[in-house]
Amino acid sequence: MNDDRYVRGWAKLKEIDGQAGENVIESLQDIAPDFARLLIEFPFGDIYSRPGLDLKMRELAVVAALTAMGNAAPQLKVHIQGARNVGCSRQEIVEVIMQMAVYAGFPVALNGLFVAKEIFSQEAAA
Amino acid sequence: MNDDRYVRGWAKLKEIDGQAGENVIESLQDIAPDFARLLIEFPFGDIYSRPGLDLKMRELAVVAALTAMGNAAPQLKVHIQGARNVGCSRQEIVEVIMQMAVYAGFPVALNGLFVAKEIFSQEAAA
Amino acid sequence: MNDDRYVRGWAKLKEIDGQAGENVIESLQDIAPDFARLLIEFPFGDIYSRPGLDLKMRELAVVAALTAMGNAAPQLKVHIQGARNVGCSRQEIVEVIMQMAVYAGFPVALNGLFVAKEIFSQEAAA
Amino acid sequence: MNDDRYVRGWAKLKEIDGQAGENVIESLQDIAPDFARLLIEFPFGDIYSRPGLDLKMRELAVVAALTAMGNAAPQLKVHIQGARNVGCSRQEIVEVIMQMAVYAGFPVALNGLFVAKEIFSQEAAA
Amino acid sequence: MNDDRYVRGWAKLKEIDGQAGENVIESLQDIAPDFARLLIEFPFGDIYSRPGLDLKMRELAVVAALTAMGNAAPQLKVHIQGARNVGCSRQEIVEVIMQMAVYAGFPVALNGLFVAKEIFSQEAAA
Amino acid sequence: MNDDRYVRGWAKLKEIDGQAGENVIESLQDIAPDFARLLIEFPFGDIYSRPGLDLKMRELAVVAALTAMGNAAPQLKVHIQGARNVGCSRQEIVEVIMQMAVYAGFPVALNGLFVAKEIFSQEAAA
Repeated sequence: MNDDRYVRGWAKLKEIDGQAGENVIESLQDIAPDFARLLIEFPFGDIYSRPGLDLKMRELAVVAALTAMGNAAPQLKVHIQGARNVGCSRQEIVEVIMQMAVYAGFPVALNGLFVAKEIFSQEAAA
Repeated sequence: MNDDRYVRGWAKLKEIDGQAGENVIESLQDIAPDFARLLIEFPFGDIYSRPGLDLKMRELAVVAALTAMGNAAPQLKVHIQGARNVGCSRQEIVEVIMQMAVYAGFPVALNGLFVAKEIFSQEAAA
Repeated sequence: MNDDRYVRGWAKLKEIDGQAGENVIESLQDIAPDFARLLIEFPFGDIYSRPGLDLKMRELAVVAALTAMGNAAPQLKVHIQGARNVGCSRQEIVEVIMQMAVYAGFPVALNGLFVAKEIFSQEAAA
Repeated sequence: MNDDRYVRGWAKLKEIDGQAGENVIESLQDIAPDFARLLIEFPFGDIYSRPGLDLKMRELAVVAALTAMGNAAPQLKVHIQGARNVGCSRQEIVEVIMQMAVYAGFPVALNGLFVAKEIFSQEAAA
Repeated sequence: MNDDRYVRGWAKLKEIDGQAGENVIESLQDIAPDFARLLIEFPFGDIYSRPGLDLKMRELAVVAALTAMGNAAPQLKVHIQGARNVGCSRQEIVEVIMQMAVYAGFPVALNGLFVAKEIFSQEAAA
Repeated sequence: MNDDRYVRGWAKLKEIDGQAGENVIESLQDIAPDFARLLIEFPFGDIYSRPGLDLKMRELAVVAALTAMGNAAPQLKVHIQGARNVGCSRQEIVEVIMQMAVYAGFPVALNGLFVAKEIFSQEAAA
């Protein structure tokens, strides 16, 4: 194992996704613990740790892509929260999702907005 | 016709997509001229003209989404050029495309990078 | 704002989607009210109001596309009801969904049929 | 082999797709001749031969779905020609493709329109 | 009707999908009974009955595809169970799903693993 | 850098994809050399090097997924060749692609078969 990547990835995952990210890792332990490790090492240890694009832009890019693809609602939820965690405003998140209507249609944009609504409500309640 | 949206959209389309955008509009005239007008009015007159997200972030979000969807290479090309037109660095564009390997797989990320390579080569030649 | 498009779109949305459409608009008010307006103006005010294709054909085309894409179940539900509202028979809807097995596979066709079954049951109960 | 389905499917394939359909069947002979037979039997012998939806509506539904999915340009081309063969007007085809901008985004609608433009040009030249 | 294909398909469906497959057929009876018949005849009577690829490889291929597409969770569930029914080990299934992270991204792989976790838990409980 | 993963991945990439894989790595050097390294390390060093699934099954799973997704023709080509390199028969490859008609529709299966036809022709010519 490459300890550096793992340690760096784990810190980055917690910085971006917080408790929701830790829950994903935990839920993999009894089905595919190696995948939990790979998820920490490659996306977070390798990609998110790179310079050249700040975390706010990275999270908005993920929100854009997952909204447009429309086939991964749980991960969109984690990353809308992640976008908030790294400092994106509600307005920025809503604007990115709305913009996806142009590139992937109104249905996926609507579904993205309803996920954002759920996350923002949880924030207001907390 | 809502002249304000059209005028605002046309200016925005030229600001972002430049000559490539004008070529798309021109190429629609003999098949669906109304769609050319709608393309100017809704994406550019309505969406890109909104406050709350700057054009650099908007273009990186589009590059992310079109890379991830992997089914619209001509438009990805236009928007990688568009990202350059509004001030995104080559590094930012490359980072966003690389990041899509995490969310939509290595094949679409590779194909996105090869489109970027083509655009950057044209810049170097110009 | 272009009042004509909004008024025309709102009437068209109610004609096609009925209460389900109004519910979507209402549910957007606290997250993205501008998107509610754009949804009325562009899809309904601009596109559905165009001549050249009657509403029955338009709704069957949407049912075909949303079934095939398989990533927008709530909107497929609204538009199967919409197809009924504008005069499509149950048989026409079922035939379009079945045909999608050829173009997008049996899983999305099955999932489309189960959405139709739910809508038709609600009709029978009403 | 079920001769009825094959004979019925072959006639239906020629009615809808004409020479382009026959070319597809021919091009499969040296790689997967059984798939050529299955393609005649299931889509054309089983599905297109069903009552309850006329061929014009069936072809517009396919044009809608293939435009929206955006990952099968050769088949979209065959079916835009097929739509013409069974009596769809150019306007109907253009309207269906334009409508897909609402459900699957402007890029796939643009690419669909450019395929239609190519088919209509070939008609004009013939 | 081609009785041979139907009888052969029905036996194959029960061999692969077991009770879950029979439930799908049953649930179609009041909405599209013809589709139930076509589902037995084409996928199971025509395709799964072919020589040249054993059922274990066929089921792993389906698990791969449905994981990657990410838009048909109920069918992925049926086929993970189907893979188990025809002799695939849990490890083989988990490896195929993990591998899809490379080709279609981590979100669809995660969602596939959680479906597998559910199926394996039901086995343990049974 | 984790030299073990890189060395192991590079050997695995050459074993599976041969010259076509090396060409992909080479073509990335002037646009995203880090992505070339990540492509060697994660898919090939981490995933393909895992026990529990032999390379033949892994390559057939990739052929299934890329055929079904239908949005990455260059990579499908590389992996049909890869499947041949690790010992899959032409018949196995054709069967997997044909089977995708059931799960993702006839158009993507047809396009996959035509890619296989091209690869098999090159083999025959070599």
